[in-house]
Amino acid sequence: MPHALTLNAGSSSLKFGFFELGDLQGEPQSRILGLVERIGQGERAHIKAKGADGQVLLDQEYGRNHVPDHGTALARVVDFLREQRPDARLAAVGHRVVHGGPDYAEPTRLTPPVMDRLAQFEPLAPLHQPHNLSGARAALELFPDAIQVACFDTAFHRHHPWVNDTFAIPRKFYDQGVRRYGFHGLSYQYISETLEKTAPHLHSGRTIVAHLGNGASMCALMGGRSVASSMGFSALDGLPMGSRCGQLDPGVLLYMLMNEGMTPKEIEDVLYRQSGLLGLSGLSNDMRTLEAAGTEPAREAIDYFVFRIRRELGALAAALGGISTLVFCGGIGENSAHIREKVCEGMGWIGMELDTGRNLRGERIISTDLSRVRILVIPTNEEIVIARAARDSLAGAG
Amino acid sequence: MPHALTLNAGSSSLKFGFFELGDLQGEPQSRILGLVERIGQGERAHIKAKGADGQVLLDQEYGRNHVPDHGTALARVVDFLREQRPDARLAAVGHRVVHGGPDYAEPTRLTPPVMDRLAQFEPLAPLHQPHNLSGARAALELFPDAIQVACFDTAFHRHHPWVNDTFAIPRKFYDQGVRRYGFHGLSYQYISETLEKTAPHLHSGRTIVAHLGNGASMCALMGGRSVASSMGFSALDGLPMGSRCGQLDPGVLLYMLMNEGMTPKEIEDVLYRQSGLLGLSGLSNDMRTLEAAGTEPAREAIDYFVFRIRRELGALAAALGGISTLVFCGGIGENSAHIREKVCEGMGWIGMELDTGRNLRGERIISTDLSRVRILVIPTNEEIVIARAARDSLAGAG
Repeated sequence: MPHALTLNAGSSSLKFGFFELGDLQGEPQSRILGLVERIGQGERAHIKAKGADGQVLLDQEYGRNHVPDHGTALARVVDFLREQRPDARLAAVGHRVVHGGPDYAEPTRLTPPVMDRLAQFEPLAPLHQPHNLSGARAALELFPDAIQVACFDTAFHRHHPWVNDTFAIPRKFYDQGVRRYGFHGLSYQYISETLEKTAPHLHSGRTIVAHLGNGASMCALMGGRSVASSMGFSALDGLPMGSRCGQLDPGVLLYMLMNEGMTPKEIEDVLYRQSGLLGLSGLSNDMRTLEAAGTEPAREAIDYFVFRIRRELGALAAALGGISTLVFCGGIGENSAHIREKVCEGMGWIGMELDTGRNLRGERIISTDLSRVRILVIPTNEEIVIARAARDSLAGAG
Repeated sequence: MPHALTLNAGSSSLKFGFFELGDLQGEPQSRILGLVERIGQGERAHIKAKGADGQVLLDQEYGRNHVPDHGTALARVVDFLREQRPDARLAAVGHRVVHGGPDYAEPTRLTPPVMDRLAQFEPLAPLHQPHNLSGARAALELFPDAIQVACFDTAFHRHHPWVNDTFAIPRKFYDQGVRRYGFHGLSYQYISETLEKTAPHLHSGRTIVAHLGNGASMCALMGGRSVASSMGFSALDGLPMGSRCGQLDPGVLLYMLMNEGMTPKEIEDVLYRQSGLLGLSGLSNDMRTLEAAGTEPAREAIDYFVFRIRRELGALAAALGGISTLVFCGGIGENSAHIREKVCEGMGWIGMELDTGRNLRGERIISTDLSRVRILVIPTNEEIVIARAARDSLAGAG
């Protein structure tokens, strides 16, 4: 029976999944899911893995510098999997790749020319793309006989209308690939497919999905297809994030360059690593830390985060011509009843009415029965979307 | 009887107004309004002026290079006014100044230290601020005995909430003055005061004003006060404009710097002078030209302009918690029934219903009687706002 490995690299983390693919017809069966955190020089990395029934298979902290990079993290994961499943027949490896640029609207087999092309997008997602590709390179060496498939966070948005694809700058930039790509596409695809299966009457309507995690964006879906997103060309735009700025006046960058004499690298570092919740709170990029802190700057950072979500809700509703369903997902969206409540406050004008009891209990439907807009919480699952793509690629190659 | 001169300098234009101030209690009476266009090296400038009853007092084209800068333009204006009104007793000169930075929330007497401070904001509005200040310098020399008052486009927004004042970057930038100022404040103040006088029930509600001209922005008013604006730190952000980009992913600037090797000056030139409607159409920064052209790129530029207005309408409604009134103003907002109709299309979900007949006839109220949102067209008048400030300053000094 063929197996698939899914790899999903963040800036300092690596999620992995081990799936049974069966006869390549049915749903891939998740057997092991795991996460390596705090990858990096001088860090004490941590690995955790669970089986299908939720039992913990591994929970271990490494010594400082034992997992300095994503390649080493992958080697640790492979050691663990070989020990757990000596029977494994790894037929496919699926990789989440943040940026597919203008070319890739579908999962794509990783060949050397494809790898070269994807490396060109590294400057557009410096926190993710280099790690995605170094993971892919390591996997290509470790499993030369497996099919390797890239699943792009941009692909789900590739058919949105032109007004959502362009910026108002000279057209030569569009032709060079300076477009509004949108990201978190695997998450949105999962939510869209889940709605289609479980609530087709909602799926056919106007849906806004708020993917709120350390990275955060929102997507407007019409009949399950992406029409607009809060993220654009890079992974910086739209909502403020853990350490990324979100929407920013282009004049601020000109000011940083011309008045502050900052170099492009310094600006990149500020906007990707020192901004967002971290920059405003001066404390942390982690929403849980801010909610617990209760200091004035922490509260203000949360207020700004919530305000920008509300603002984007109105903007995306305008792009859709209305809203029938709002879905929360991602670490914050799935776990913070407080943030969900603050987002829905004052959105009665758009037809949203939160049921505070359902929200606190973390139910799937958290709107009142009379709310014109249905409000849902759906735990997202990027890994299964990657596993399905791996399965399909294998079926197609067979 | 004291008189006031108002000066309102654009990138290549100078609007002026000549007002009688009477006993400094009542409304300033406009006697002459005029405009110098195509100021600049190698241009054939044009001056036009009308009297209070609308009769044309002057309509003249200059030879090439006869009006190379705003100082010369002002000298021409003063020559004309001295000829027209040898009786003039110019007690006050009011200047529109685009950027007042964090310090100025009210009209302010122009003193040398104030002029120095305002010069520091030139990089934030390079198309306007230098001309505003060179006009002020020339007027200080020409009329050393008159009171000189600066009226700031940023002042009307200075009390909006913190979530609308900050960006999600490290706080030291906010402390340095990197804030969301918002512009077109004289126009919004005029609309707000006009609503208060003529439709107090609308003034007390949730109003969104779309100031659509060669510069364009939108403002959310709660009870007549600015709560949020589409423009931020510089005059670049928000809606696309004649030649300015509007909203732009900060990653695009990093790309221009790092991948294209552009200098900050080159980027500034692209974003201020080659973008917006001009950049997308490849044809013109003038909406009238694009509407007449009917080419595909011209149509796409218009579609993008309209789409971004609709998106901002939804976003500002979210900032207000709803919308009861939409006001169009500015050159495009007042004169293009076509753009107004396209903006209102598909906004039924928010309660907007346009009366197409009223819209085509250019009536003041262009919504249907049953529309939940009242839609108005109000010709804006920045000059009278400046003249009132000049009068008040004179009354205060007397």
